[in-house]
Amino acid sequence: DTIFDPTEHPHRRFNPLIEEWVLVSPHRAKRPWQGQVETIDEDERPSYDETCFLCAGNTRINGEVNDNYEKTFVFTNDFAALKTDTPKAESNDPLFKMATEQGESRVICFSPDHSKTLPQLSVDEIVEVISTWQAQCQELGQHYQWVQVFENKGSMMGCSNPHPHGQIWSQQQLPTLVSKKQKALSAYYQAHSSNLLFDYAQREAEQGERVVVQNADWLVVVPYWAGWPFETLLIPRFAISRMTELTSEQQRSLADAIQQITIRYDNLFNCSFPYSMGRHGAPYDGEEHPEWTLHASFFPPLLRSATVRKFMVGYEMMAESQRDLTPEQAAQRLRDVSPIHYKESK
Amino acid sequence: DTIFDPTEHPHRRFNPLIEEWVLVSPHRAKRPWQGQVETIDEDERPSYDETCFLCAGNTRINGEVNDNYEKTFVFTNDFAALKTDTPKAESNDPLFKMATEQGESRVICFSPDHSKTLPQLSVDEIVEVISTWQAQCQELGQHYQWVQVFENKGSMMGCSNPHPHGQIWSQQQLPTLVSKKQKALSAYYQAHSSNLLFDYAQREAEQGERVVVQNADWLVVVPYWAGWPFETLLIPRFAISRMTELTSEQQRSLADAIQQITIRYDNLFNCSFPYSMGRHGAPYDGEEHPEWTLHASFFPPLLRSATVRKFMVGYEMMAESQRDLTPEQAAQRLRDVSPIHYKESK
Ligand SMILES: O=P(O)(O)O[C@H]1O[C@H](CO)[C@@H](O)[C@H](O)[C@H]1O
Ligand SMILES: O=P(O)(O)O[C@H]1O[C@H](CO)[C@@H](O)[C@H](O)[C@H]1O
Repeated sequence: DTIFDPTEHPHRRFNPLIEEWVLVSPHRAKRPWQGQVETIDEDERPSYDETCFLCAGNTRINGEVNDNYEKTFVFTNDFAALKTDTPKAESNDPLFKMATEQGESRVICFSPDHSKTLPQLSVDEIVEVISTWQAQCQELGQHYQWVQVFENKGSMMGCSNPHPHGQIWSQQQLPTLVSKKQKALSAYYQAHSSNLLFDYAQREAEQGERVVVQNADWLVVVPYWAGWPFETLLIPRFAISRMTELTSEQQRSLADAIQQITIRYDNLFNCSFPYSMGRHGAPYDGEEHPEWTLHASFFPPLLRSATVRKFMVGYEMMAESQRDLTPEQAAQRLRDVSPIHYKESK
Repeated sequence: DTIFDPTEHPHRRFNPLIEEWVLVSPHRAKRPWQGQVETIDEDERPSYDETCFLCAGNTRINGEVNDNYEKTFVFTNDFAALKTDTPKAESNDPLFKMATEQGESRVICFSPDHSKTLPQLSVDEIVEVISTWQAQCQELGQHYQWVQVFENKGSMMGCSNPHPHGQIWSQQQLPTLVSKKQKALSAYYQAHSSNLLFDYAQREAEQGERVVVQNADWLVVVPYWAGWPFETLLIPRFAISRMTELTSEQQRSLADAIQQITIRYDNLFNCSFPYSMGRHGAPYDGEEHPEWTLHASFFPPLLRSATVRKFMVGYEMMAESQRDLTPEQAAQRLRDVSPIHYKESK
């Protein structure tokens, strides 16, 4: 009883990327759940839906008509959170500090096929999505320091249209979470003369217990400091700081890694697994950033089943993130499912 | 068009308590919502439910029997996230840093009446809840540096039992969010020789536009840097650093402020308004903390109606919090509703 057992004893783990702690209370998974039960997203959809704002050739809410696209399609968000023409203004009062922000919000359709989701696309189709992300970063990175690529998948994650799509928000300033990473990555680089995430990838590859997916170029791990139950981190096994630097071979191996992890997610609870996914890399500020490594995070809300999620509320909102199973247990469960999508194996 | 209008132009506001920014995109409120719609909590409940684990005299899941309490009742969480007897262990590897954590997790029933919620209790009954919080802080503060008092209200906030109750988690270390506040409050105190939240309360009382509720001792404001749509901050108009220092008059005025804000919340969308609420004050470390002010935060998820919430996903998870109406607009809406609970005025 006096020997520490991570699967039994409450402990805190430190996220070195943002310098925050997470409380791990693994025995909490045993409590029965009597709370809110989610509805499962209706899964069977047609390949084309005439009422969908994202299907090819359809008219959007503002009257614009979508291209008759065959691969991917990018357009400006009809209700953009960031705009190019916002006037400049700021206040430096320590208690009432603000600044206007300029930027652009775009939507990226991953495929014209309304019935599909990312894990159901072929590697070739995912390569098209990656090329589009790269082209967008290339273009927007010339005007904005930050280009945030992300996807909200599933209605549980605030996604209001099941058509496979993501978003790209670019802006002048580094957002809060990115500033934290910039600070932590720089400090590590100065202290160790090496790159935090590159070092971390080597260590995870050696240890193996948190690795879910790997190929020659990429690793997907449940990070040692994961907050969400089945959170994963997609990291390269080679030095790269930004999306725009990917070679065509690395695009393809990245598509393979994305396909593998998203298939495993769907297979965990036999449902279209909801998540928010996003990518971070060096800012587009014209500087070398040897401290940065391009990486992606998946934040999925589910905990126990397709209908029972983790609530990040109360203690989590007032104190710090808390999890109910260890990252190693989560990685094991994701490794244990089939690598073939459950809808294909039927 | 070149003059900054906070209700039209995207801007970022700085939260000086945790040194993080929030993106305000007020025009986003105009977008139509086609996403997830929540179910409304069933509101009519009996005063006693024999299947409830929190009702007086009932047997809990672990076989323990609740007191036949008449006011409030505190017991140890049957699935505690923190425990007294966790063995000590730690690792200081920069990439795999951890430490075990000792503490206690308790549940506090606010009333024996299963049918009520906080805004439906009388001021006298809320005074009993406050006294219990104080007694708990007094006791636990002798053993632990941190005592986190909080309430998750409503199934949307992960609450699995509608019986009016909250929680108290105490622990050795300061949680992440509290460490951030400690840092920011100390820095402000050193720079200005005054107390950040005390100064802020004066400024808000003068300006008035973000004030929702006030009495002789307390202010409830939608803070200038609010993240959640109808987030509020409850702050004193007198110097006080910890819960345990409240006089009986201040207990009573606090009960009044809590009653007023929670009634306004219920009246906003005519529903039992979900939220997480929690309290922060100086750590119980035996030190003077002139930089600290006792305060409470309410984080409610609803945005548009009783069934349409704000999703803190995607951009919010990967970049920073984003809101769809200004804090001033939210305060105005909360001021505009009746001060009498909608169920009483029927
Ligand atoms: O302890 P409860 O009420 O069962 O659980 C609830 O509150 C906890 C503390 O905020 C959270 O960790 C849980 O996700 C939530 O469901
Ligand atoms: O732009 P959408 O998909 O309508 O909106 C969704 O993603 C946004 C960016 O993560 C969030 O701010 C919204 O809360 C969410 O509903």
